[in-house]
Amino acid sequence: MRFALTLEFDGGPYMGLQRQAHGPSVQQAVEEAVLAVTGETVTLHAAGRTDAGVHARAMRVHVEVGKALTPFRLMEALNARLRLAGEAIAVLACEEKADDWHARFSCVGRRYVYRIIDRRAPLTLDKGRAWHVKGGPLDVAAMDQAAQALVGTHDFTTFRSKQCQSASPVKTLDRLAVRREGEAVLIEAAARSFLHHQVRSMVGCLALVGLGHWREAQVGEALAARDRQALGYNAPPEGLYFVEAVYPDA
Amino acid sequence: MRFALTLEFDGGPYMGLQRQAHGPSVQQAVEEAVLAVTGETVTLHAAGRTDAGVHARAMRVHVEVGKALTPFRLMEALNARLRLAGEAIAVLACEEKADDWHARFSCVGRRYVYRIIDRRAPLTLDKGRAWHVKGGPLDVAAMDQAAQALVGTHDFTTFRSKQCQSASPVKTLDRLAVRREGEAVLIEAAARSFLHHQVRSMVGCLALVGLGHWREAQVGEALAARDRQALGYNAPPEGLYFVEAVYPDA
Repeated sequence: MRFALTLEFDGGPYMGLQRQAHGPSVQQAVEEAVLAVTGETVTLHAAGRTDAGVHARAMRVHVEVGKALTPFRLMEALNARLRLAGEAIAVLACEEKADDWHARFSCVGRRYVYRIIDRRAPLTLDKGRAWHVKGGPLDVAAMDQAAQALVGTHDFTTFRSKQCQSASPVKTLDRLAVRREGEAVLIEAAARSFLHHQVRSMVGCLALVGLGHWREAQVGEALAARDRQALGYNAPPEGLYFVEAVYPDA
Repeated sequence: MRFALTLEFDGGPYMGLQRQAHGPSVQQAVEEAVLAVTGETVTLHAAGRTDAGVHARAMRVHVEVGKALTPFRLMEALNARLRLAGEAIAVLACEEKADDWHARFSCVGRRYVYRIIDRRAPLTLDKGRAWHVKGGPLDVAAMDQAAQALVGTHDFTTFRSKQCQSASPVKTLDRLAVRREGEAVLIEAAARSFLHHQVRSMVGCLALVGLGHWREAQVGEALAARDRQALGYNAPPEGLYFVEAVYPDA
């Protein structure tokens, strides 16, 4: 039986979602929990492959389990095991899916939120939960305006890491919106899929606009350059949250 | 010169705000930072004396410093020192005050927010930042209704810890309001002052109402009993945030 899981995790303790040779990963932790619960060695497939330190509020993954279990019992058992193992991962939901449903390949939309706190004082309660940008306050209206140059179908080579394995640098960005919420600046990005480091690279450049170091038009100019050297800044992972995977069936 | 500081801190690593014989405190950390910056041994006075594990978004305190420093330089130096020492404390604001201004005795209002997350799955990103209540979802409307029995001037003996040093158990509660915000239930409490454990004790009883274990009227009945034995539950510290101290001059 194929089970779709909705995962929340604190990315801080992990080398990333995908299994790594050296260091803990979300994939390894969940696969080990499934092994402990079912006695089965499974492979986890995920909607997104988040980097070290990147968080998830609702990552969607799937695993194949032979043991007869209801989705509810599997979720409960996995949460008990993950908690026992001291993992910073929780299963928020679990449902049975048809064999042709795939967490990665069936996914038609991904949404991220990037969180910046632009105050002068160091972070305490939000440490590791946001990018701390000093030299602000950020000009949120300018950031939102500049962001619109990136929306649409473009060659995002400038905003792509050298390690990116995507066949093409052309992606369609459906939404990039910047707003203030309390002392945080939130940047929401939605697309069918993203290049490696794309969100963090876009956020890094928008922060330069917000600080007044870049003119608004420079974001569009950096895009047009199609050159990684034109990138202003790659924002750190601790502000990034994977918040939604969209499927045709839901 | 008397400096008023606005502090944010993660209460997790501390035995409480007040200096303790055994274990770290917010008071000790800030006094040591002032000593490092000015060479002076000072005594910190605070608007509230929060318990071990209780957080602050804006605690107000004051210290007397002889060294000639602008408020801005003092704030910057304290933040640099607190960061270096690995403390989970930040100075959000600093201003000079007259000698008759006292962080504790001039304070005419205190406001707390208590944060509950009532989902089934364990907490990851919010671990240590909220009380995890299972068996929900909580009935927020019933909690808010029940809370109104506590607003006003009452003998709060039921909601007072045995260690409470207040001369009288009679307090005036100005506001106690319960609302949902995303996956969290927030309980806001405002009064001139509170008894020891009063907010956590009120929240514990409201949670029983939210879970359906208590009728709404039982909160008022517990109050009328004026007996600590009538308390339903004392909520844990990790959900409690000191969010505002009110002064006549601001």
